Parts: sequence; C-alpha cells; structure tokens
Amino acid sequence: MSNQLVRITFPDGQQQEFPQGVTLTHIAQSISPGLRKKAVAGSVNGTTVDLTRPILEDADIAIYDAGSQEGIGVLRHSAAHILAQAIRRLYPDASFGVGPVIENGFYYDIDIEKALVPEDLVEIEDMMGQIVQEDLLVLRKEVTKDEAEHLFSHDPLKLELLEDIPAGEAITVYEQGEFYDLCRGPHAPSTGKVKHFKLMSVSGAYWRGNSDNRMLQRIYGVAFASNKEMGEHFLFLKEAEKRNHRKLGKELDLFMFSEEAPGMPFYLANGQLIRNELESFLRDLQTSYDYQEVRTPLMMNQRLWEQSGHWDHYKENMYFTQVDDQSFALKPMNCPGHMLIFKNGLRSYRDLPIRMAEFGQVHRHEFSGALNGLLRVRSFCQDDAHIFVTPEQIEAEVSLALKIIDHVYQVFGFSYEIELSTRPDDFMGDPDLWDQAESALENVLKKNDLPYKVNEGDGAFYGPKIDIHIRDAIKRSHQCATVQLDFQLPEKFDLTYVNEENEKVRPVVIHRAVFGSIDRFLGILIEHFGGAFPLWLAPKQVEVIHVSDAHTPYAESVLLKLRQAGIRASLNNRNEKLGKKIREGQMRKVPYILVLGDKEKENGSVTVRCYGSEKLEEYPVNDFVEKVRDQIRDKQ
Amino acid sequence: MSNQLVRITFPDGQQQEFPQGVTLTHIAQSISPGLRKKAVAGSVNGTTVDLTRPILEDADIAIYDAGSQEGIGVLRHSAAHILAQAIRRLYPDASFGVGPVIENGFYYDIDIEKALVPEDLVEIEDMMGQIVQEDLLVLRKEVTKDEAEHLFSHDPLKLELLEDIPAGEAITVYEQGEFYDLCRGPHAPSTGKVKHFKLMSVSGAYWRGNSDNRMLQRIYGVAFASNKEMGEHFLFLKEAEKRNHRKLGKELDLFMFSEEAPGMPFYLANGQLIRNELESFLRDLQTSYDYQEVRTPLMMNQRLWEQSGHWDHYKENMYFTQVDDQSFALKPMNCPGHMLIFKNGLRSYRDLPIRMAEFGQVHRHEFSGALNGLLRVRSFCQDDAHIFVTPEQIEAEVSLALKIIDHVYQVFGFSYEIELSTRPDDFMGDPDLWDQAESALENVLKKNDLPYKVNEGDGAFYGPKIDIHIRDAIKRSHQCATVQLDFQLPEKFDLTYVNEENEKVRPVVIHRAVFGSIDRFLGILIEHFGGAFPLWLAPKQVEVIHVSDAHTPYAESVLLKLRQAGIRASLNNRNEKLGKKIREGQMRKVPYILVLGDKEKENGSVTVRCYGSEKLEEYPVNDFVEKVRDQIRDKQ
Repeated sequence: MSNQLVRITFPDGQQQEFPQGVTLTHIAQSISPGLRKKAVAGSVNGTTVDLTRPILEDADIAIYDAGSQEGIGVLRHSAAHILAQAIRRLYPDASFGVGPVIENGFYYDIDIEKALVPEDLVEIEDMMGQIVQEDLLVLRKEVTKDEAEHLFSHDPLKLELLEDIPAGEAITVYEQGEFYDLCRGPHAPSTGKVKHFKLMSVSGAYWRGNSDNRMLQRIYGVAFASNKEMGEHFLFLKEAEKRNHRKLGKELDLFMFSEEAPGMPFYLANGQLIRNELESFLRDLQTSYDYQEVRTPLMMNQRLWEQSGHWDHYKENMYFTQVDDQSFALKPMNCPGHMLIFKNGLRSYRDLPIRMAEFGQVHRHEFSGALNGLLRVRSFCQDDAHIFVTPEQIEAEVSLALKIIDHVYQVFGFSYEIELSTRPDDFMGDPDLWDQAESALENVLKKNDLPYKVNEGDGAFYGPKIDIHIRDAIKRSHQCATVQLDFQLPEKFDLTYVNEENEKVRPVVIHRAVFGSIDRFLGILIEHFGGAFPLWLAPKQVEVIHVSDAHTPYAESVLLKLRQAGIRASLNNRNEKLGKKIREGQMRKVPYILVLGDKEKENGSVTVRCYGSEKLEEYPVNDFVEKVRDQIRDKQ
Repeated sequence: MSNQLVRITFPDGQQQEFPQGVTLTHIAQSISPGLRKKAVAGSVNGTTVDLTRPILEDADIAIYDAGSQEGIGVLRHSAAHILAQAIRRLYPDASFGVGPVIENGFYYDIDIEKALVPEDLVEIEDMMGQIVQEDLLVLRKEVTKDEAEHLFSHDPLKLELLEDIPAGEAITVYEQGEFYDLCRGPHAPSTGKVKHFKLMSVSGAYWRGNSDNRMLQRIYGVAFASNKEMGEHFLFLKEAEKRNHRKLGKELDLFMFSEEAPGMPFYLANGQLIRNELESFLRDLQTSYDYQEVRTPLMMNQRLWEQSGHWDHYKENMYFTQVDDQSFALKPMNCPGHMLIFKNGLRSYRDLPIRMAEFGQVHRHEFSGALNGLLRVRSFCQDDAHIFVTPEQIEAEVSLALKIIDHVYQVFGFSYEIELSTRPDDFMGDPDLWDQAESALENVLKKNDLPYKVNEGDGAFYGPKIDIHIRDAIKRSHQCATVQLDFQLPEKFDLTYVNEENEKVRPVVIHRAVFGSIDRFLGILIEHFGGAFPLWLAPKQVEVIHVSDAHTPYAESVLLKLRQAGIRASLNNRNEKLGKKIREGQMRKVPYILVLGDKEKENGSVTVRCYGSEKLEEYPVNDFVEKVRDQIRDKQ
C-alpha cells in the first residue's frame, strides 16, 4: 500500500478513506471480522470483483456475502472450478470446455474417455469436499496470450477458446492449489467458502453447442448459501417432479407425443376438454368486450412474409411448402393475416377500435433438444388479438386488455408481475409517437395502481410493450400475457383509416395475448394445479360409485340428473371393491366422488367426498347438483 | 327388312314380333304416330341407340322422348352438333375439339382466330335456330380409320383424337346436311327435334385439359325438353345467383379470400361466429353420445403417410415440408393421427366402442381453376370421427351415427337421400367380414325405415359405405355426411384390442362425418338460407333501433337485457333516418328488428319486425327476451 489515500463510498452513502491499494478484504475486516469471514466477493464502481483486487482510486464499493445475488453467483462459479479441479485429480487426462453459472448452480463440460455414471459423481463430489476442506487460496493472475497458450498446451479445448481471444486483450487465469483455469472471474477468496453444494446429473453436450463437434460430458451441480436453502431447493425439485406436466399428462390421459410429429402434441379426450374450456372461457370474455373472432389460413405466400418482415427476421424458424410452384410458409404468427383482413375494407375512425382475435395455430421450428412437453413445442395455438386503434385510443385499449388479463389470471389464482419495456436504441418510427405511447402505457399502469418494473430500452424495435409474468403455485415465474404497441406493421401493410378530417391516416396496432400459447398455458396449469384441476376445468367433475348392484338404478338416476345439468359425470360400474373405486377416483383427481348406498337411496341424497379432503358430507341430490352447477358457472 | 321375325319386349313386359331389321322409328310408329313424333332415341338391350338402328335379334327395347333422362341427354348431344355446324357455317376455318353433354346442356371446344364476345353468341344461336328449322336428317355412318382421317384432314384437333383410337375399332361419323362430326352417338333423328336451347357463355379451356396445350374457346349452352323447363332453369339460375355464397359472403361480411392464400378462406367475424355455432352444436351433440374429442398435429412424418397408404394414393394432392431434414406432410385426413391415439394404450373389448372425434383442419391441393368459394377449397375443417368397434358393434354404431346425422340435418331443414355402396371388384380383406358388414349396413337402414339406393360395387376397396346426399332449398343435391366401414386401416396400423377370450384381435374402424367439411357446409348453408340464417346461427340476432335521442336510455336498457340473456344484439345509434336503419337491418338479414319509440318506452315493450315479414308485433320486453332465448335454445 502507498501513502496516497482513496475515498471509499459505502452502499449507504457513508464515506471513509483508506490507503491506496487497499483490498475489499481489508475494508471488510475494518468493518468487522465477521463481515470479512462471510464475504465472498465485492463490487468496485458497479463491477463485481475479487475481494483481493487492490483499489487504486476513489470508489463506490459493496461487499457481498453468499446470501446476496452477486455473492451466490460468485460461489457457484467457484464451485465449478472446484469441480474441474476434482476431475483433474481423478482423471488427469481430462480436457475442459466451459464451466458457467446457471440458475441454482453451475455446470462444467469435460472431455474424458470414461462415460460417467452416478457412482462417479459421488466420487467426484467427495473429492470436491476434500478440496473445500483444504481451503486453498484462490489467486488471480493476468497473463499474455503466449503465456496462456503455454499454460494450457495440454488442453486442446482451452487452446481453442484462447484462439478466439483477440491478441492484446487481458487474459486472466485463476489458480487454486495445483489447479488453474482460464477464467474472467471473479471468485471466492478460497475454496473453503463453497460449503453447500451437490452434483446433480451428467448428460451429453456438443462442444460449443454445435452438433458437428465432439460430444462432451456436462456435469450439473447446485450450490447454495446455506444447507437450509439447499434443502428447500430439493423440496422444490421434489414438488416440481410430482407436478411434472409430462408425467401427469400420461397419468391423467391429457396428451401424448409421437415420434411421427416431434414437438407437436396430440390431445387426448381429457386434455382436449380442458383446452376447449380454456378457449370458450376466453372467447366468452372477449365477446363481452366486443372482440371479433376471425380465422385465417395456416399457410400464406412467401411474399407476404417478406412484406411483414418475418422472412428477414424469422425464416430460420419457419416451415415452407410449395403451392402451384410458389413458396408458401406455415404461419409462425397471425399478424399478417389480420393485417389483410383490416385492409379488406375501407375503415373509418368510427369503426375503431377494432379488436380482432383468433385462436390461431402457429408453427415455429425449435431444435429437437429444446423441446419440452407442452412448454416448448413446434406447433401451438395462440390466443392472439390485434387491436387497431387511433393514437388517442391506446390508453383505453391497453387498460381494457390489462383488465381482461387480470380477470383471467385471477380465475386461476395466479399472482403476476408487470414489466414495461421502453424504446430501444434501434427503435423505428416517430419519436413523438414513441413518447406518447410510452407515457400512455405508464399512465395506464399508474391509473390502475398496478406496480411495475421498467426495462429501459428493452422494447421491441416496433414499439414499447408490457409483459406479464405469472407466478405459479410453487413460485416459478412464466411470461405469458403480453401487450405490445406496434407502429411498424401498419406502415409495412400500408394500413389506413379515414379520420374526422376525412384524411387517410395510420392506425396503431396493439398485439395482445392472454394465455400466450394455449398449449404452454395448459402445461403451466397442469403443474400449477398438480393435475387437480378446479371443478370447471376438470375433465371429469363427478364420479358416481354405488355400494352394490342393488343401488344401480338409484346411481343411474343421480348420474342422469348430473348430466342433464351439464355436469361431466360418470358411473363406475366395474366389478370392483368400493375402496378400490374410491382410490381410482382419487388417483384421477376427480373433484367430487359420490358414494351411494342404502342410506342415500332412502334419503334421496348423495354422500360427497371432495378431492383432497377426508371429510364426507351428505346432500340432498338436487342441492348437490345445484351447488356443483353454480360452482362451475362461477369457475370456483 | 327380311322375312325373319324378331321378338321385341317392351318395358312393361309385353312382347310383339317384327320383321328382322325393324327400327325403333318403325316400332314407335306402330304404337302411335304421336310416339314416333316425340321419340328422340331408344334403347336396345339396355344400350341407348339411334332410332334408325336396325334390330337384327330378339331384344328388350325402350323408346325415349325428350322428357326422359336418356332422351334429353341425346338431344343435348345433338344440340352440340348443331352448335358446331353453326360455327362451321360462320367460321369456315374452325377446328373442333370435343362437344360433350353436361348437366342441363352441352359445350363445344372450338379453335378459331376470333375471340368470341356475347354478340357473337347471339349470331351463332340464330344460325343454330336456322339449322333446326331446316330439320336436317341425322345419319350414322361406320367408317374405317383411313376414311375418317381423310374426312377430317382439314381439322387438326379431330385428327389428334383419331390418333388415339386403336386401329380396327369401329369409328362412327354423324352427318347432318353439309356437316359431319366424329361421334359415337346416339343422336336425335333430325335437327328439328332440338327446339329449346340457349347459348350461355364462352370461356377459355386448354385442349384436352392440359395447360401445356393450346387454349381453345369453350361455348356453353343449355337445352331442355320444353320451354317451361327451360324457363324454370333460368329462374333457378336467377335464384341460385341471388343465393350465391361468394356474393352473400361479401355482402354479409362472412369471409374473404386473398391472393396470398388461394383456396384458403379467411373467416371474418360474422362467418367465424357461425362456424363456432356449428362446431359447438355438433360438439354438444357428440358429447351427449359419449364421443371423445381429440386434437392431432397438422403435419406428420412422411413415413406415417406411407404406412397409411396416402403416399401411394394421394401424394399428388398433399403439401410437404422439411422438419429436421425429414419430409413431413400436412395432413389431408385425420385418420392416421387417430390410429396413433388408439395405439397409445392397451385396449380391451370393454373399452369399445371408442368414438374419437376431431374438428381437424386438413390441406388438400386442388387446381386453381377448380377452386370455388367455400365449396371447393385447399384447406378445410373436417368434422371427422373414427369409431373403433368390434364386428358385433358395427350395426349399433352405424345406427347411432345415422341418428346424429338425421338430427343435424333436421335442424337445418335438409331432406336427404341415402346411398349404400357395396363390395367392389378390387375389394381387400375377408369376404365373410364384407358380407357381415354389408348386411349390417342394410339391416340398420331397414330397421330404421330409411329408404336407400344401392350402388353395387361402388364401395371403397377398404369397406362398404353409406353416403348421404342432402337437398337444399333450391333442390340441389350435395354429398355431405358419410359412414364408411374400414377393414384395412386397422391392418395397416396393426390395431388390436383384447377380446373376452384374452386374445388380441382387430377392431373395425368406422369413418364418419356429418358436415363433411365445415367450410363447404357453411357455403351450402349460406345458399340454402339465402343468407337469412335461422336465429341461432345469425351473426346478429336482434337489431335495436330507437326513434329519436329521447329514447336512447330506454333502447340501451333493452339492449342490456338482450345481451345479458346471451343474445347477439346491437343498437344502431348512427345519425340516420329510422327508415334507413330498418332497411339496413333488413339488408343484413337480421332476424329481429326492434323499433323503440314513445309507445314502447311507456309500455316497457318492444315492437318487433321479423325478417321477411311486414307484420309488426308488440311484446313486453321480458316476454320478447324469453321468446328469443327459447328459440335460440331450440334452434328454431
């Protein structure tokens, strides 16, 4: 340290002077030895750095422990290095790809002869524990490209990574004990800081994500700030697995996939029933808000997609076919079709707003490796709407769209967060219109007392947007609804309406989706409800079970009443024991199971077992029918 | 005539002897001179022939006048020759293609320099009239191929036709006055028999239907047995034009087409509303009969279509695309997808019948020239169902399918005719199963007292079928519903279920459609109803019109009541005169127009004008709402 002083500003705004070259470790120690012990990294003027980096100028600083976002990120990165070090000790010939931080943990891509099995992961994890025990100091070194190439001369993958670094750029190497890795950092000051981690799985991964390259082995691990957090994570995984929509989709006969159409779901009767309920729920709601439903072709001439800009920006994800020697594309979006409908007539300001909705089946290519049940597919049905408005109508229409979105999400019990994304650097169109549009969006959110986060510069090039992220029953976030303003599409399709001054002017288009993709939304719902759908969505709403053959006529009369009331009910008249029938109904997660015996027959009643409850309640049959019908109507 | 006699049997079974070589003209004359005058052709042992053909052996005969199917067909054929003769007189350089009989008339394809305009048709028609006046005798001559080539040496198109006739085959030429034509006949005995005809239009047609060939001019004409029939035909055309679904589709904003997707309809809000009503009508009906609705992908791997046989028999009409370097086809039918769903689980006889339904969007290529509004498209939605049954269940399930079809057609007021098509020569599968299936189909029709026509040998190679032809309001026939048994698809997909003896055996598949194509059915409905849809289908059911601004609040209260009852109603609050508003509502064919003024406001009533009636009726508002709601529910 020199005799010069630097002025350090803490996150709370307090300032203190330290000798030039002071490290964050020193500063932490000066505040309290406890803080130094907990610290894993820090920041200097907004950049996350190692604790040992000397500070040479006045700076704003922060010190991170494992409980912070930044701190746990650094720890996970260090865990990846410890993993690599353990592998090097066990497999000296290993070559290393990349080892980044991911949600909840980290992975490392490695190249070794042996195909790793779960037992190997246990051994590697033990070796990692030993390295943590050794509490090796972690050192950052700047090296030249030549030095780096020398250091990694035994590791062909690292040499390839080095090739891509421009000459003259700073290269850093992190060293811990006998191990060193090419890395930008930052890292925890010693391996002993990484206490709560676990290796999860190993899978294949092409080097640099390119299927022409060699297949490496990718080892996944998680790391947390505490054992408690890690325990919660495993509980979450267990819960998520229980709710896994692919598993439940099979168990409840909701949908299937076939190798004849990868990524394109087949809906079985139960799944299709739910889809139909979702569609008609939104259709009725939209009708009550004067939406007009339309239906446009599934494929259209390539020149239309050139006009819309999809050809330039999206053709890699589109499917093409030949019609009469011309190239046609399967629609990846419904917008261009709706633009053609708008252009089909002369439009006046008196016609606006036009709220045009479609349950439109779109096709978008995804890599087969990216497919994931209903959550990532190649063909799905969008609940798409385009609202054609005058600039003055933007606010009212966005407000209405948000009202519909709120209504829908409340029905499912989803809480949600709103993000407003504003003008990006490469925006197109009139800046005044942008200003007007952005303040319209903000006004709507403020007037409706909706809390929101602003993502500055994150809007689409064609307009600002509002995205809605729902939170499911196990606290996962999913972006579903969106409300996007578009100033470009009306230009590209030369859309006009006649205003009050009898001039032809451009409308603004609002893109809007509530479910987003009905397929994906159904996947989310399956996991949100763990397959136990609310009454109105349940494929089977009531299961009737009779104690013995003597009760068949009574059971059938109850069944008839239920069905006549439009309730999806059935009678289990298989030749099985009562208990087995009840268990079967519970396995199928049927909301109401009715058990009918002598007492019920005599009383003209039903004994009801509600899904998820052990309690039995007896109702007069007509009261029960009415109660269920009301609950369905009210979507309870 | 020789001294030998031939025994002639008349249609009523009576017999009479005539000298060998007698002609039908003679026989007609022997019955009555009136019959000879009316006769235009006849038949000998089931073959339609000229009246002048000598009869050399015992024969069953019939004599046809213009009022019979066969007679009018012959007259139309002769009218085509008269047309050609007229053209030859007016355009001596003309070359002639073919001149066949079509529904209601005939056409002739000709090759002349001049592009014909309507005035030319008048001139040609006049010349035809003159030829009829001349009452030229029509003579049949058998010639050799050499003679024929000599006769038509001036006509390149006829020479081309001659080329295709195998050497040695009988060639006939018909001669009338200076004109002769290459023709199989038969023809009317003289040109004077063709009395009631008219030329309709001229359009382009490629020689032999091949677009690589020269474009000819095709002149269309009609011919009838009487002026009365011809007058009825023109009335029919006028009525059909008034009901033309393409015209009404525009006027009522039901659908549109775009050159970006030829043959693929865009449904506007009004059309989509009707489609949705049709779908949910059938969906509810099917649900009540325990159908299971599914949804399968729009494209599937080519190998699936090879397995199903579509590749072999249908690939020319299919659209293909590439997915992950494999060829996928857009589905032209839903069957293979449903087979995959059946195979998705182990099926037991206890699970059958499985009634699997889908509103499936299919794509089938059609020549652009064949496209016709909604009636002939390239993409449409089938109300497809596949019913998987044991052989014993065929009868019950076909009966059920016919019941649903009958129910649906009754709602629209369609009468219909049933045709049963039986085992063709190239049938596949077990003849016993065919016998069983055919008698099952006949049994169903008989037990249900359904009259039907048998088309012997007209079934599909995979099974016998029942087709239903509906008759619309102007008596046109449309084949819509079908019930087809299929023994082959279960083989091709190796479908099995476990029977009571615990053996794996094949189910039978029943293909079933009610609407056929929802798009085409909608086209038929538009023409059937002339755009004046029944209440439950009408895009707008009630139009509310108020006499002046003073009645706005009352009108709005009525509107609200209607809407709350789920009735599609709107208020015309444009600043226009009452009469104009009423006329607008009538133009849009709104079933009920309400006019609200002082009297109605005071009485809490509505004055109702029913579409198509001049009568005004006053109802208390609640009574009207209830009446309309009931009518909608009952699909009146």
